[in-house]
Amino acid sequence: MTANPAIILVSPQLGENIGMCARAMFNCGLTDLRIVNPRDGWPSEKAVAASAGALEGGVIARVYSSTAEAIADLDYIFATTARPRDMVKEIFTPRSAAEKARTEKSVGFLFGAERSGLVNEDVALANGVITIPLNPGFTSLNIAMAVMVVAYEWFASGDKTAPAQLMTGESGIASAKEIAELVGRMESEMDKGGFFRSPDLRPTLVRNLQALFARTRMTSQEASTFHGIISALTGLRRS
Amino acid sequence: MTANPAIILVSPQLGENIGMCARAMFNCGLTDLRIVNPRDGWPSEKAVAASAGALEGGVIARVYSSTAEAIADLDYIFATTARPRDMVKEIFTPRSAAEKARTEKSVGFLFGAERSGLVNEDVALANGVITIPLNPGFTSLNIAMAVMVVAYEWFASGDKTAPAQLMTGESGIASAKEIAELVGRMESEMDKGGFFRSPDLRPTLVRNLQALFARTRMTSQEASTFHGIISALTGLRRS
Repeated sequence: MTANPAIILVSPQLGENIGMCARAMFNCGLTDLRIVNPRDGWPSEKAVAASAGALEGGVIARVYSSTAEAIADLDYIFATTARPRDMVKEIFTPRSAAEKARTEKSVGFLFGAERSGLVNEDVALANGVITIPLNPGFTSLNIAMAVMVVAYEWFASGDKTAPAQLMTGESGIASAKEIAELVGRMESEMDKGGFFRSPDLRPTLVRNLQALFARTRMTSQEASTFHGIISALTGLRRS
Repeated sequence: MTANPAIILVSPQLGENIGMCARAMFNCGLTDLRIVNPRDGWPSEKAVAASAGALEGGVIARVYSSTAEAIADLDYIFATTARPRDMVKEIFTPRSAAEKARTEKSVGFLFGAERSGLVNEDVALANGVITIPLNPGFTSLNIAMAVMVVAYEWFASGDKTAPAQLMTGESGIASAKEIAELVGRMESEMDKGGFFRSPDLRPTLVRNLQALFARTRMTSQEASTFHGIISALTGLRRS
């Protein structure tokens, strides 16, 4: 199982972009950055500034003089490309690539230069290809954005966060009994206030009110606040 | 079903970041950009430059003076926040938010200013919250990266690309018969060349070779190339 896939930037041009790639990597817990022939040299002050602390606080960058050298110790290499190449290769979405990467021992993701992408010679070295499904009418993707998507999918493939969860702070969700008491009290006060002009419609109106309150999934705290609101409103009526 | 969710940037600071957000949006097919009180004014030359054509070619940007005004026509609002707030809200991952968004009529995604994020007053206006699961040790996320992840998940939730597919170019995958013929010919030539010194091991060696060739999923073209290679090598032997 891969613990820390490498991000390999081949012939990147701007230090600032390298820094943004490092930042995106570290956002997703990746720390192994390999740079093949950076045009503007290395180390780069612009890269450090753009990394927002990632290059000083976690990401380790190493420079190589060829792609072959940069990937030499890795078992499975993905090349990211926007356009199909005339090669026999398996093409993955970033999501399925992340799942595949989880099953490999050591993995690298290759990214090409800002304008031109990877050359065919580099794509040929890869075991698989990743193409990010995007708006076919506008595929001009910033290199750090491409790194972000691939690294984000890697992180997400190992993440256990519940897809959706109700954050309720200190108070818990009100029980069905608390909701029933609140709706019962409302019904009683509405009755006193002459709300139910047609007795025929009363069951439907009460049912709708029950459905509304059930849907809110209010907390005990909010139910208590609602009791206070009812008191305030009925107090107004009585005064 | 939402066709085109709005991206709403609340009090963004740098025009360059707004442009990068627009570029990320348009990469994912989104065109409705709403900007609440941009600090450096609007329109912005820096934004246009950073958008790499997105602001001139597809994304429509509108400026509003308050968040309430910017979201007024929308049915369901997500607020993106990195940290939990003391509010009762449903928290979504970007992926489950995209699925939820697909079921709503009109949707907006709120993003806060670069440094500070959304204020509680803006989060309170939202129906749900998105928190991107990321490295808890480094949550400094560029605003355009946050937009990219949310917009990418939106695009992916409607995308039908196969998770993995073999790209074979002109030629199709070789049939089992073609592979069997190739392996059979190799076995025969290996036999002539004295490869099988121990007859006991022959079945195992042949089986391993069959497994290797089956695994490659070579194309008919590649199988044909291999036949040529065998001819060349055996020709060398004979000469």
